[in-house]
Amino acid sequence: MVVVQEEIRRSNLAALLRHVHLDGPVSRAALGERMGLNRSTIGALTAELAAAGLVREEAPTETGRAGRPSLLVRPETGRAYVLAFDVAVDWLFAARVGLGGVVLDRRRAARPRAGPDLDRVVEALAGFGRELREAAPPGSTCVGVGASYCGMIRPGDGMVRFGPDLGWVDQAFGVELGRRLGFGPPVSVGNEAHLGALAEQQRGAGVGFRNLVYLHGDVGVGGGIIVGGRLLDGEGGYGCELGHMVVNPYDGRPCGCGSRGCLEAEVGERALLDAAGRPAGLFGRDALRDVVADADGGDPVARQALRRVGDWLGIGVANLINLFNPGVVIFGGMLRDVYPGAAAPVRARIASNVLPVARERVRLRTSALGDDATLVGAAELGFAELLADPHGLLARTAARPTAEPRRG
Amino acid sequence: MVVVQEEIRRSNLAALLRHVHLDGPVSRAALGERMGLNRSTIGALTAELAAAGLVREEAPTETGRAGRPSLLVRPETGRAYVLAFDVAVDWLFAARVGLGGVVLDRRRAARPRAGPDLDRVVEALAGFGRELREAAPPGSTCVGVGASYCGMIRPGDGMVRFGPDLGWVDQAFGVELGRRLGFGPPVSVGNEAHLGALAEQQRGAGVGFRNLVYLHGDVGVGGGIIVGGRLLDGEGGYGCELGHMVVNPYDGRPCGCGSRGCLEAEVGERALLDAAGRPAGLFGRDALRDVVADADGGDPVARQALRRVGDWLGIGVANLINLFNPGVVIFGGMLRDVYPGAAAPVRARIASNVLPVARERVRLRTSALGDDATLVGAAELGFAELLADPHGLLARTAARPTAEPRRG
Repeated sequence: MVVVQEEIRRSNLAALLRHVHLDGPVSRAALGERMGLNRSTIGALTAELAAAGLVREEAPTETGRAGRPSLLVRPETGRAYVLAFDVAVDWLFAARVGLGGVVLDRRRAARPRAGPDLDRVVEALAGFGRELREAAPPGSTCVGVGASYCGMIRPGDGMVRFGPDLGWVDQAFGVELGRRLGFGPPVSVGNEAHLGALAEQQRGAGVGFRNLVYLHGDVGVGGGIIVGGRLLDGEGGYGCELGHMVVNPYDGRPCGCGSRGCLEAEVGERALLDAAGRPAGLFGRDALRDVVADADGGDPVARQALRRVGDWLGIGVANLINLFNPGVVIFGGMLRDVYPGAAAPVRARIASNVLPVARERVRLRTSALGDDATLVGAAELGFAELLADPHGLLARTAARPTAEPRRG
Repeated sequence: MVVVQEEIRRSNLAALLRHVHLDGPVSRAALGERMGLNRSTIGALTAELAAAGLVREEAPTETGRAGRPSLLVRPETGRAYVLAFDVAVDWLFAARVGLGGVVLDRRRAARPRAGPDLDRVVEALAGFGRELREAAPPGSTCVGVGASYCGMIRPGDGMVRFGPDLGWVDQAFGVELGRRLGFGPPVSVGNEAHLGALAEQQRGAGVGFRNLVYLHGDVGVGGGIIVGGRLLDGEGGYGCELGHMVVNPYDGRPCGCGSRGCLEAEVGERALLDAAGRPAGLFGRDALRDVVADADGGDPVARQALRRVGDWLGIGVANLINLFNPGVVIFGGMLRDVYPGAAAPVRARIASNVLPVARERVRLRTSALGDDATLVGAAELGFAELLADPHGLLARTAARPTAEPRRG
């Protein structure tokens, strides 16, 4: 029975930390209500997490209500952090992220499109990792490492099975990055759009939705789809490839995957730049933003380009609403910039192509986390072990305090 | 503690009955292994279910192995049954279905396409219900009623929100059918393709798969998609409408939904009959089977029609594989007849349009349950209450034995 009670206590500790991590700052009273625990149990749990440096408590600001106000519990960012990495098509990103999903420090480097090999990408990321750890405050601990990659990732070992934008096939990215970082925690890797979808659901435009479609525009278009509260992964972890849904099979533009008329071929970066008459040598996020800015300024060619891309985007989104009956569709990555100017044709296609019953509840939103969505999603991978068992992880890190870098 | 033990016993009773219902006949030894229970507990549970008339035990046939063979536990079909109904476009079906999913007795009637109203459909089904109950053996009990409908169904009350093939919008099908049956159990209603998918997963071509796409061809094309072991329902229960995925937005055939180029417009009954040059007045399953038979006999027009439809079907299926990374895709309803003659273009589209990693594990199969898939799925809805708590339901039905019809 003592064992059972100890298990319940550890499970409560984990649940409380998750609440504070995802929703904090939150009052002790609200925690008690959500977890079905009484004041003294909540008090003991928060005290233990506070002693471990994972949360801190503070008096709330004036509430205007009578009675003694409940203490606010906040995630503490100074003790436990994760390293998060993001390999996008044109950029490498790295960050130190604290509990609560706060980006505390960050690095980035441009990546040439003529794709560098695994070795050079991993070397650059590992360099950022060293810098970020050295700049971390004394006494803080790296509790995990997560990475986002713009391709299809094998669950478990972070193998990049297929990353067409960098030309990678079956590259042991997760294992190599862990080896080069060389300080302990294994690296968890996920597909960028899967991670963006999870991050938006946890902290962004998808909070409160159990059925969500996230479209992530980079050079191509990736997808993360949440069905009944869980990420759609499929048999091998390779689901959600909405960018390769063919919408224009006979007259379509060629796609990087070798097919034709894929959604990403019709709405990706090149499609928009071509529709706007930009020269073939121009590419990248800034070039896209120029088209959007020109359209905002009234340029008819840029406006027409957004409408054209918007029509194809609408066809794809309408298909997804018919299939998934989602509560919200979120436009992320470069689609966050493109969507506002393309919203009218998207809405028109939804009105004409989606069965009325399936579109009753759907909302269309742009990403709330913006370009940080994938990085924040990668950080969640790094926090998974701590959030599953804060007690166990703290006991282990307490046993090896000198393994952490110190300054000064 | 006594309460907890009683709850565990009831939950074990339900779990054992579910095993026998879905997988039976199954040996006591296998049940013990799957449920993690010892011989004496399994013996007590099966004895209780046997006394209630829900299972029976029998000696196994010769096993060729040494030692005392384990008794086989079979579902007993004589005591508890459900009524299952299926409203398809051209037919109304009704059946008495026993534990184990066995169709014990059935009725059907042709339905004119100039759609009859709710009242006449419900009257016909209720008449079948009476006949089936009167023909049931003495002492048997109807423990639930399930119905399948070719349209979008509101969960909870079986309201047909949108049934374009019959022209129904917001018709209280479930409630009205329950009222006309007039003998107690509420009617659970589901979409035909959702129920077909669940039935194939439980007893058909999808056994063992946690990620499955089921395409159900009738006049149009419906879908049932299982993601991570659970039916994709979405926010309102209206997901899986793969027939209205637009694959040919500009040159497509008009669709009954008001849109153009939907998958069902390109591969449905009318598309195939038109491609085969059949006159506009011809329709129905027999007309389709004639085209398939002509193609099998070498008729070039019929062959070309199947190839044309197969190409569009392949485009749709490839999109679904990219999205869902399923273990199996199952062709049901009229697509069961059409698929064999259309398999080559479907496979060609999968090879050209699906990302290699996403198609590694996928199998393509025709429905194993055939035209019974939707009816068997509807029967499962009727069995849900019994399978959740056989003890409770039996106690209630034992308290009102005279409520059941008797013969002789």
